Amino acid sequence: MTPAQPLRVGMVGYAFMGAAHSHAWRTAPRFFDLPLQPRLTAVAGRNADAARAAADKLGWDSVETDWRRLIERDDIDLIDICTPGDTHAEIAIAALKAGKHVLCEKPLANSVEEAERMTLAAETAAKQGVMSMCGFSYRRTPALALAKRFVEQGRLGEIRHVRAQYLQDWLSDANAPMTWRLDKSKSGSGSLGDIGAHSIDAAQWVTGQSITGVSALLETFVPERPLAGDLVGLGGHGDLSGDAPRGKVTVDDAAIFSAKFDGGAGAGAIGVFEATRYALGRKNAMRLELNGTKGSLAFDFEDMNVLSFYDAAESPDAGFRKIFVTEPEHPYVGNWWPTGHGLGYEHGFTHQVVDLVTAIGEGRQPEPSFADALQVQRVLAAVEASAANSSQWQKV
Amino acid sequence: MTPAQPLRVGMVGYAFMGAAHSHAWRTAPRFFDLPLQPRLTAVAGRNADAARAAADKLGWDSVETDWRRLIERDDIDLIDICTPGDTHAEIAIAALKAGKHVLCEKPLANSVEEAERMTLAAETAAKQGVMSMCGFSYRRTPALALAKRFVEQGRLGEIRHVRAQYLQDWLSDANAPMTWRLDKSKSGSGSLGDIGAHSIDAAQWVTGQSITGVSALLETFVPERPLAGDLVGLGGHGDLSGDAPRGKVTVDDAAIFSAKFDGGAGAGAIGVFEATRYALGRKNAMRLELNGTKGSLAFDFEDMNVLSFYDAAESPDAGFRKIFVTEPEHPYVGNWWPTGHGLGYEHGFTHQVVDLVTAIGEGRQPEPSFADALQVQRVLAAVEASAANSSQWQKV
Amino acid sequence: MTPAQPLRVGMVGYAFMGAAHSHAWRTAPRFFDLPLQPRLTAVAGRNADAARAAADKLGWDSVETDWRRLIERDDIDLIDICTPGDTHAEIAIAALKAGKHVLCEKPLANSVEEAERMTLAAETAAKQGVMSMCGFSYRRTPALALAKRFVEQGRLGEIRHVRAQYLQDWLSDANAPMTWRLDKSKSGSGSLGDIGAHSIDAAQWVTGQSITGVSALLETFVPERPLAGDLVGLGGHGDLSGDAPRGKVTVDDAAIFSAKFDGGAGAGAIGVFEATRYALGRKNAMRLELNGTKGSLAFDFEDMNVLSFYDAAESPDAGFRKIFVTEPEHPYVGNWWPTGHGLGYEHGFTHQVVDLVTAIGEGRQPEPSFADALQVQRVLAAVEASAANSSQWQKV
Amino acid sequence: MTPAQPLRVGMVGYAFMGAAHSHAWRTAPRFFDLPLQPRLTAVAGRNADAARAAADKLGWDSVETDWRRLIERDDIDLIDICTPGDTHAEIAIAALKAGKHVLCEKPLANSVEEAERMTLAAETAAKQGVMSMCGFSYRRTPALALAKRFVEQGRLGEIRHVRAQYLQDWLSDANAPMTWRLDKSKSGSGSLGDIGAHSIDAAQWVTGQSITGVSALLETFVPERPLAGDLVGLGGHGDLSGDAPRGKVTVDDAAIFSAKFDGGAGAGAIGVFEATRYALGRKNAMRLELNGTKGSLAFDFEDMNVLSFYDAAESPDAGFRKIFVTEPEHPYVGNWWPTGHGLGYEHGFTHQVVDLVTAIGEGRQPEPSFADALQVQRVLAAVEASAANSSQWQKV
Repeated sequence: MTPAQPLRVGMVGYAFMGAAHSHAWRTAPRFFDLPLQPRLTAVAGRNADAARAAADKLGWDSVETDWRRLIERDDIDLIDICTPGDTHAEIAIAALKAGKHVLCEKPLANSVEEAERMTLAAETAAKQGVMSMCGFSYRRTPALALAKRFVEQGRLGEIRHVRAQYLQDWLSDANAPMTWRLDKSKSGSGSLGDIGAHSIDAAQWVTGQSITGVSALLETFVPERPLAGDLVGLGGHGDLSGDAPRGKVTVDDAAIFSAKFDGGAGAGAIGVFEATRYALGRKNAMRLELNGTKGSLAFDFEDMNVLSFYDAAESPDAGFRKIFVTEPEHPYVGNWWPTGHGLGYEHGFTHQVVDLVTAIGEGRQPEPSFADALQVQRVLAAVEASAANSSQWQKV
Repeated sequence: MTPAQPLRVGMVGYAFMGAAHSHAWRTAPRFFDLPLQPRLTAVAGRNADAARAAADKLGWDSVETDWRRLIERDDIDLIDICTPGDTHAEIAIAALKAGKHVLCEKPLANSVEEAERMTLAAETAAKQGVMSMCGFSYRRTPALALAKRFVEQGRLGEIRHVRAQYLQDWLSDANAPMTWRLDKSKSGSGSLGDIGAHSIDAAQWVTGQSITGVSALLETFVPERPLAGDLVGLGGHGDLSGDAPRGKVTVDDAAIFSAKFDGGAGAGAIGVFEATRYALGRKNAMRLELNGTKGSLAFDFEDMNVLSFYDAAESPDAGFRKIFVTEPEHPYVGNWWPTGHGLGYEHGFTHQVVDLVTAIGEGRQPEPSFADALQVQRVLAAVEASAANSSQWQKV
Repeated sequence: MTPAQPLRVGMVGYAFMGAAHSHAWRTAPRFFDLPLQPRLTAVAGRNADAARAAADKLGWDSVETDWRRLIERDDIDLIDICTPGDTHAEIAIAALKAGKHVLCEKPLANSVEEAERMTLAAETAAKQGVMSMCGFSYRRTPALALAKRFVEQGRLGEIRHVRAQYLQDWLSDANAPMTWRLDKSKSGSGSLGDIGAHSIDAAQWVTGQSITGVSALLETFVPERPLAGDLVGLGGHGDLSGDAPRGKVTVDDAAIFSAKFDGGAGAGAIGVFEATRYALGRKNAMRLELNGTKGSLAFDFEDMNVLSFYDAAESPDAGFRKIFVTEPEHPYVGNWWPTGHGLGYEHGFTHQVVDLVTAIGEGRQPEPSFADALQVQRVLAAVEASAANSSQWQKV
Repeated sequence: MTPAQPLRVGMVGYAFMGAAHSHAWRTAPRFFDLPLQPRLTAVAGRNADAARAAADKLGWDSVETDWRRLIERDDIDLIDICTPGDTHAEIAIAALKAGKHVLCEKPLANSVEEAERMTLAAETAAKQGVMSMCGFSYRRTPALALAKRFVEQGRLGEIRHVRAQYLQDWLSDANAPMTWRLDKSKSGSGSLGDIGAHSIDAAQWVTGQSITGVSALLETFVPERPLAGDLVGLGGHGDLSGDAPRGKVTVDDAAIFSAKFDGGAGAGAIGVFEATRYALGRKNAMRLELNGTKGSLAFDFEDMNVLSFYDAAESPDAGFRKIFVTEPEHPYVGNWWPTGHGLGYEHGFTHQVVDLVTAIGEGRQPEPSFADALQVQRVLAAVEASAANSSQWQKV
């Protein structure tokens, strides 16, 4: 066996997502056979000391304080973008122009216009064999990948209902501190783009259908929050006194919308979506349920190793079957542990690296492409437009 | 102890609801102390033989073939209306005018106009001590009644999210026969009025808030269905060959809407509602979840003896607590079995009789009043108006 | 249709079980077609005033203060025994000798010797067409009856494991009052005979196998309890001060035993049983799980309308299927409500009446016979013998 | 910050456990601050090519074909034993004598005699600062560690019931191939030592009590299995034709036993244990439930991020609270992801490395010590003795 060629990675950002991506780059080749061997070559961050500490902790070989330097370096093959959404377009386009493959965190951008420019850059680069992918990592949860397989196998028949919720509660406390995720200029939107985008991507991907229109309602429950020096990221129970100076929340706290799908061969499904960070007690309930003419599927990330499947053919003794998605035949699972030994949150990122590196190695376009992510961005924009227009139906 | 005075009941209709109501009239005094003693005096149905057979089976003393006769009889104190919605207004108004108390199945009527007339009649009659109530029987599920108690006790704080689903699947099969429930002239609407009305009433009642506006989407998946002689009621797996003549479905199969609540003391909640008979595998999933600033509640009628409660004060060891609502301190439960011995579907109707008879005996207005049910009817109408107008926001 | 002949019932005892039986006698003919029409003719109790009040409340036509009078009466066809176990043998044998059918609550008796005499009397009476049945009412839970059907259909293959728990917690509080259920002279044994007997009967009935030997451990956690005047029955959270005089608990609080089954056609299964009233938080967790060579089944009475079924043939996408046992094809269910509308605790008693009356009407031996109940009694005795002998294996 | 000193690891064996341990050594320092920096210095395996391939895949710097060489090397600080139980004593004792720290997989040995010698060696070595630990990795599941914390905080009161099951199904198929785990000379025992040992350790550790006696039943369902060339390890659905030559299964397939605990301050609990690989549909159901005088706890590894807790003080609104053990305050969790993002099977091994390296770095005895594991071994021996003696009670 010839040793695999290296794939030298330069990562921008090293917070929550940076840690998850680092673990994935490190771990993927230990459990999967990859055509290229990832190297954690360099990480970029504006604060040199902090970036150096992160590099040591996360296992990166070198540090840059400007992401532009990362792109200039000859010893970098791929740029991994783990920064807030307002920076994605500039970094990704520059990297693609420089011939670097790109993995970009979701949502792809903070506007359709940015996403369109990124997609154009991606399509141009692809002609030169330079690949790009958007990090909708939930696609790599084995149970959701199995759900897609079931739909493709026709086990649900024609899909009628899509029910997607992404429920968190880390902002329930009105004194939880302000973060960049609540600043529209950084994050583009709130629950909608941060977590709702995952639901949109998952729903479209699993069903194989695209959303064609929406009617939406957005709500901001807590309009101001205490400032905690630097804007912190996604936090625990952090809580500041009522006396701290407060910053303005400029994004939605919760998003609700109905949707129609284009139906593929059938008549199309109708969907209902909800994304919030105020559903007290729901910690990371990224849920998807599909009801078809032959069967139904239900998934909840809080029980991420399980897919529930209802097969109407078993009637009158039918019932939701709780499939413990830990069999060697299930997506990704055979490379891990014996049956019954569940995976965790970070495995999605490891699988993302596996799929990305495999596609690059084989010269194929990885999925989801920037074009796929642009479609999600268009749905996000339609949701905002409908909400701003008395919930009137908005075509995507 | 003086023997209780009788309360002589005349019931109109004897199908699914008639059987449930008969059981309730018969059973309530055996487990609860009532101020009046219900008597199953007469049942009315157009087909004399069928009505006679039903009377024998269900335990009614006599039979009428015209509901008007029932109202004329001196030995009837209360009219119990268990017929399709298109007949409610005429029967109820006539009964109230004749000085009979009325229990009317939900939805109160097939239009706001009818419901307004009924409410007027009810309010007029009430001045004479003639009482009326609408049969939103889910209010009498102990777990939902406990949910209301928790909200009233402030254990949820201010409510932010309402999540209400009513999912059934008995129409998933496109060859399931046509029924009166799919004929708009009989039923008024489809999933919306049949099951969605329960969700609306439960959500408003438990939260103590009223819906002020909605944005809605209605869908009919199967526009024609085989005709099975007489229009049958709610069925099992009945299925007709593809050759049977087909009738037109004139109601919605599924309803999705977002809503705003008036908030009581707080700022109001936002809600998302879904009602469908096409959610394959969901048999009677009447679900309600509330997220407040201090706690959350979740209920699913498919596990009807359970209420899930999340108390944020227990953080970081908080979690949804699965309360088995079978303790003597819980609503209605103390009159039944020891702790841990669950109740079933029909108990809601028995409790409804208990509450109705107790209110009549005490000269109080029972709840939900026709006025309460009129408010539900207005929400139903707003949903239909929004759906007919590109989902645009519609005030209630 | 000729009107059904009456079946005139005389019931002894009117506490918890008496209320459940009364409801069943009253309700069964309203939902099921029976060959005989039950009449609630007379109830017997030593205290005349209390018995009269109970008769009025529960709907019995007359009262006796001595059960012997009930047996003497010509207008009684069936004696329903709802008293503590120490009285079963005398009443049942006298009734059978007098030509009355007998329904006797479980456990059949307080000793094997009594149970043997009762069985002999039952078998003698049966030759004259006088029938008898023991009230293991859990057999009539639709989900458990469906479990038996699955085993009979071979859907589990050969059974290897039986896992039976009956967990309650109403004695967890060491100050909960003394009851007759804790007095060996009344109840025969504690958790073992009261609830463990249900598990034994259910396990043997569903598997179609008999227990051939056991190894057991019995434990009494609280040896004395406060006396509350008359010995109360199964209670709520009743609690007496630490100063009340205390009575001695003379039965087991918890029973654990392993067992071997005779296997029918196969090699036999091994089982593990646990019965306790000290499993805090478990209210009426009567659970049974079977693992076979082809499939598994799991049941928990706290979710009584559900049967979980695992079919290995569906591997690798197999999973426990949560069958909501509310379809018209399921045992007993078709006579009640539409799909998805669950039943409650008391329905088991109603179904018991249906099966008993149907068997009597058809001249068949109802099940479980006294002989079946004697086999359970022998297992109970073997458990006690093993526990008294250092857990040594004890043949049944 | 001074760079941490290295801790150079030599691992023996590289199958299932070897992969899990390698991942842990690699990952622990990336998420936790450790006093010593683990190095994956060398791995030993008899087959040079296979060992070399494993080293490359798993990330080890060098290879030895004899574990004795590993112990002789100066550049190795710790020996990590991932081989079958028959080799543990020899390797561990030699390593300890050579001054190497030892991490030894469970069960500690295949006999009490071996375990005693290992414990003696461990205690002697400890006096020189050479540490040892047995790999009961389930202790490092956050939910089980939280369970122990709850017991220590007195939230359960005095424990009365222990209910421990370890249910798997990978041997249900009678044609699944023979493995070393079914050969008594390699594995010591079957389900009992492989998975039952985990239950015993967890039950004793969480309760803080030791088992003092047992009564047991062992069963072998399938006495012969097809041979698949080399004895394979824990497998998927592997299945051989009925014609393959068969080897004799010399261990138990299932173990059931009751137990008494020494009770700490209280009166002691009684327990029931079951371990099997034939519970069809249960994949890795390592379950533990405790019922105390104040509260109860329940855990199931198939839902490993959840701990269920019942607090009787909340009565009558008490209920099992489903704690999603993903808060920063929960054991180990704060070093991983935000709330609600669950962990997987391998995290237990990473936490094991964290605890081991921390203890070594601080000069403390890590837990569980060999002495702790010896106590488990004594329970295993008592179970076997009781089972061989008609289930008679056997003191530990």
